[in-house]
Amino acid sequence: MNHEEVPLLTDILKDAPKNWGKWGPDDEVGCLNYLTSAEVLRGIQSVRSGKVFTLGVPIGHPDGDPIWPGRRQAQRFNIRDRGDYLAGAGVNYPGGGQDADDLIIMALQGSTQYDALGHFWAGDQVWNGYPAEITAGGLKKASIFPLADKGIVGHAVLIDMARFRNKPVLGRGETFTHLDLLAAAQAQGVTISKRDILIVRTGWIGSYYSTPDEVFYKDFLEPGLTYSPELLNWFHEMEIPNLSTDTIANEVTVDPESGAILPLHVALMRNLGITMSEILALDKLAEDCAADGQWDFLYSAGPLKIWNGTGAPVNPIVIK
Amino acid sequence: MNHEEVPLLTDILKDAPKNWGKWGPDDEVGCLNYLTSAEVLRGIQSVRSGKVFTLGVPIGHPDGDPIWPGRRQAQRFNIRDRGDYLAGAGVNYPGGGQDADDLIIMALQGSTQYDALGHFWAGDQVWNGYPAEITAGGLKKASIFPLADKGIVGHAVLIDMARFRNKPVLGRGETFTHLDLLAAAQAQGVTISKRDILIVRTGWIGSYYSTPDEVFYKDFLEPGLTYSPELLNWFHEMEIPNLSTDTIANEVTVDPESGAILPLHVALMRNLGITMSEILALDKLAEDCAADGQWDFLYSAGPLKIWNGTGAPVNPIVIK
Amino acid sequence: MNHEEVPLLTDILKDAPKNWGKWGPDDEVGCLNYLTSAEVLRGIQSVRSGKVFTLGVPIGHPDGDPIWPGRRQAQRFNIRDRGDYLAGAGVNYPGGGQDADDLIIMALQGSTQYDALGHFWAGDQVWNGYPAEITAGGLKKASIFPLADKGIVGHAVLIDMARFRNKPVLGRGETFTHLDLLAAAQAQGVTISKRDILIVRTGWIGSYYSTPDEVFYKDFLEPGLTYSPELLNWFHEMEIPNLSTDTIANEVTVDPESGAILPLHVALMRNLGITMSEILALDKLAEDCAADGQWDFLYSAGPLKIWNGTGAPVNPIVIK
Amino acid sequence: MNHEEVPLLTDILKDAPKNWGKWGPDDEVGCLNYLTSAEVLRGIQSVRSGKVFTLGVPIGHPDGDPIWPGRRQAQRFNIRDRGDYLAGAGVNYPGGGQDADDLIIMALQGSTQYDALGHFWAGDQVWNGYPAEITAGGLKKASIFPLADKGIVGHAVLIDMARFRNKPVLGRGETFTHLDLLAAAQAQGVTISKRDILIVRTGWIGSYYSTPDEVFYKDFLEPGLTYSPELLNWFHEMEIPNLSTDTIANEVTVDPESGAILPLHVALMRNLGITMSEILALDKLAEDCAADGQWDFLYSAGPLKIWNGTGAPVNPIVIK
Repeated sequence: MNHEEVPLLTDILKDAPKNWGKWGPDDEVGCLNYLTSAEVLRGIQSVRSGKVFTLGVPIGHPDGDPIWPGRRQAQRFNIRDRGDYLAGAGVNYPGGGQDADDLIIMALQGSTQYDALGHFWAGDQVWNGYPAEITAGGLKKASIFPLADKGIVGHAVLIDMARFRNKPVLGRGETFTHLDLLAAAQAQGVTISKRDILIVRTGWIGSYYSTPDEVFYKDFLEPGLTYSPELLNWFHEMEIPNLSTDTIANEVTVDPESGAILPLHVALMRNLGITMSEILALDKLAEDCAADGQWDFLYSAGPLKIWNGTGAPVNPIVIK
Repeated sequence: MNHEEVPLLTDILKDAPKNWGKWGPDDEVGCLNYLTSAEVLRGIQSVRSGKVFTLGVPIGHPDGDPIWPGRRQAQRFNIRDRGDYLAGAGVNYPGGGQDADDLIIMALQGSTQYDALGHFWAGDQVWNGYPAEITAGGLKKASIFPLADKGIVGHAVLIDMARFRNKPVLGRGETFTHLDLLAAAQAQGVTISKRDILIVRTGWIGSYYSTPDEVFYKDFLEPGLTYSPELLNWFHEMEIPNLSTDTIANEVTVDPESGAILPLHVALMRNLGITMSEILALDKLAEDCAADGQWDFLYSAGPLKIWNGTGAPVNPIVIK
Repeated sequence: MNHEEVPLLTDILKDAPKNWGKWGPDDEVGCLNYLTSAEVLRGIQSVRSGKVFTLGVPIGHPDGDPIWPGRRQAQRFNIRDRGDYLAGAGVNYPGGGQDADDLIIMALQGSTQYDALGHFWAGDQVWNGYPAEITAGGLKKASIFPLADKGIVGHAVLIDMARFRNKPVLGRGETFTHLDLLAAAQAQGVTISKRDILIVRTGWIGSYYSTPDEVFYKDFLEPGLTYSPELLNWFHEMEIPNLSTDTIANEVTVDPESGAILPLHVALMRNLGITMSEILALDKLAEDCAADGQWDFLYSAGPLKIWNGTGAPVNPIVIK
Repeated sequence: MNHEEVPLLTDILKDAPKNWGKWGPDDEVGCLNYLTSAEVLRGIQSVRSGKVFTLGVPIGHPDGDPIWPGRRQAQRFNIRDRGDYLAGAGVNYPGGGQDADDLIIMALQGSTQYDALGHFWAGDQVWNGYPAEITAGGLKKASIFPLADKGIVGHAVLIDMARFRNKPVLGRGETFTHLDLLAAAQAQGVTISKRDILIVRTGWIGSYYSTPDEVFYKDFLEPGLTYSPELLNWFHEMEIPNLSTDTIANEVTVDPESGAILPLHVALMRNLGITMSEILALDKLAEDCAADGQWDFLYSAGPLKIWNGTGAPVNPIVIK
């Protein structure tokens, strides 16, 4: 399909559900409002063994980091270390202490990260109807800060689509729907309940570290959820607060039906206010869930509180 | 006291307890080994109401960020936003989606952060006896990565020293000891148990936002815990896995007795392997604990998984 | 005067002379077109003694660098040096060579620099009538690149306004006009000829290094040339290709008559296409000119060829 | 040859000539001392037509920039531009002026640049015998600053080795000696005189822009001058102040005889104090020299005055 023939997301989604105004005109956290203390306690109650998993990927891995095409790899530099002390250029701390210090330059969405609700939009408005102009020079509304300040804590369910389809990793552009999620949940013996934090594994990010860059990024097309009005209704009615996956963009890169890029960023995040975290490391967690049969757990994520940020890196924690 | 007369930390601490080798020659997480599943479950069991608190400070706050003298303020820049789209310079995403994206330059210890165990040392060795040369160009051992990969999760107790001393904030260079912590705990009606994550509030970081820089940084001297052999023994015997405070360096900047800088970084972190997180925002949490009388809770922290990093920013989460 | 009462520069300058289109619709170097080979040779012919002066200021000076309020100081970091080799972390070059390497983060207009012709404008158009939208995300037209690719070489005259007024440095907001330049030239015994590169000393940047920051930047108001229709006509008729000064913005910060900020950036640079270099170190050169009575010379400047840049650092060279 | 069998540069060069101490124990500019006013005037006298050439390569070129393997590409970002003004997020300058501003992150040796004399060494000492420890954390001696402060101005000769060998570009690892330079000079009809600035064209950097990265960088091995005792004597006796080429490192990457990396960096720069500029754009200049038969000219270069820098970017200027 030619680029020009792709319909506008504002047209595709003109009848799609929206939560704008639902939590007042000043809301900046969207469906995180669903994560009440009751939901937090539901997460707590799902903990059984006390096993802990961290879901962030390495930043500055020697093999490179998986990153959306066009963003740059993070650069970390030592500012001071043992070498400076050996060369007589360390800090002369009374008592003789020595230290190492460093600095990083990184895209705020260049690793495991939360998107600000105002990070992606269609038309002239972002989440809750704020004019898109609030993004200029830094997000004055719907930035990552309110999400990070609140924290994302609740009861989560992991759906392992790769395992369900008997593959180590879903294929380039391979799609699935909410019905597939439900079928996989049934196969796993777990129930997706209202207000559950949804975590979906495709195997994609895990495959990065054993895939040459020229293959991983070639005709970049991630697997993932794909748009349909029914899928939107399901997320809406289920009051899903948060969607997290082990891909860079949480949905199939290009909607195979319309040709549009990232329609779910608009439909789920901008319209419904569902928070998204991306580039999660899910392989070890999935392995463990498959082993002990427990696919639900407490999820807690504290993205960095970047003032005006379009997103922020995060290392989410799962307690089973 | 003259700088030259300050005794060396290696001498001051020559009989101090060490946990080197306790968890094998390859250990990089130190006292986090104490945080077994049993400790995680003890944290889970302390949750009552489902209230959530995030302990990170803002990064890029308009009033500036509290930072150790000599480090630079973080710089965040938009790479793309609504302005680019208005000016015809946005990305031409099929379907008409638009996005905002940004980048940050920051000291990895320039905000609420975890220190790598190898970040500070005295003599020629860092935690577990690794030669200090492992820090050159990036920490090849005892970096932040293993701490971040494991995550810091357990049962925590907040001790509010400022409140105990009836002050909004402790004074410049004001010190306290483990005995003061115990007295404050008693006054709060909470018990510090073996393997508890210890969080101490001084009011210092909270005061930053209402204090002019020229006052906050003048003759920079933070309040905090101060060294004594008895204090070391207490931390050692209590198997405290982690110390977190609302100061930049978790201890009084200069030991008033010896004149040495940061002896507890050496005695607790480098020798015992106790992890440290610093620059926490504790005022709201303390307010709530004082109100409901619950000073213990589940603490979970996922510093960013910076490869070879000397530390990493973090936004810890407390669930009460 | 209230901010709201300040007239628009587009109104103030509605009858001001413009060189748009003079060198064709695709021109990006403006009055540098005046610097023909004949002008270069005129510069060459002014050389007498072979003395050389460099006009850049230090970048990363321990006392800080003079910079427009709001821009950040440059940060330079060693990536590798002797310390790494001592610590066994250097590069293992066959033959045993060792090296030091570094990196800089700097505002492209954060030191002695040339402005791109498209760097400053009023209304909807930049130099030569290009729509201001060409600046979005990087200057697609009238960037620093064409200026840097051409180079700025010609016959230059130094006018020392501070010396003319018997002051080490002009006062905060002190102004002067083309008539003052002419009077000073006469006092110096030098003639400003058509197509001369004009260099004006105020003493301002030189004073930075002995002035506390809180004084230098307080109510920031640099001395400099001030707008009048007559001044514009003089620059226009004299076909001045380039204006360089030892201030950060080459003109009095606020026009005392209208209250407008930087009218000459619009009138001289955007309308006439006169290139501007700023933050020059002129004290040593002026001292020498006063001593030997030679106030004209060959000037050559090669700003860095930054693709799409709004400006670029430079270290101009004078040969007398 | 195995890496271990490569002899040490300190052994290879143990009898090589050195200029240490020749200009006093505090010298930091080495052979630039040869560039007296007389040499500057000799350069001036070689100017005939007034043609100007700039020798810097683009920084941030859309096709990438040629860079030593391991260094990172420069990143330039707009901080503010027309988009911000359209979105209502510009600066509210009285009078309505608008501006574009940007920032760069770059390796200081990541483009056309001058090496500091202390940038590369063998053994324990850099230029003039300063201990290599002066490089730790920033070059305290023999940094780029003194070179930049002095400027590099003199009479230069271009030797076009590619043209002499009838090739568009020399081959991977292709070498030449001072005798080849002399033969090429003779063929060009130009004489290399004592104290001439030497500029050598190989075609290498010019080829970068039409060569895929995987070819350009594969088994990275640049063509260039190659070490011999006779070559050192020639440079020494000719009092060559400066060597500039259109390669990244000014000499064949690996000495084919010894297997050592960059012996001339040690022999010419560290031992003799000859300044080096690298990554020059020489194709247009060479084309012009071939056309008019004038291969000598005035050369002036003003590297940025980076405090403590290991090198600095530069855009040299040639006037014929």
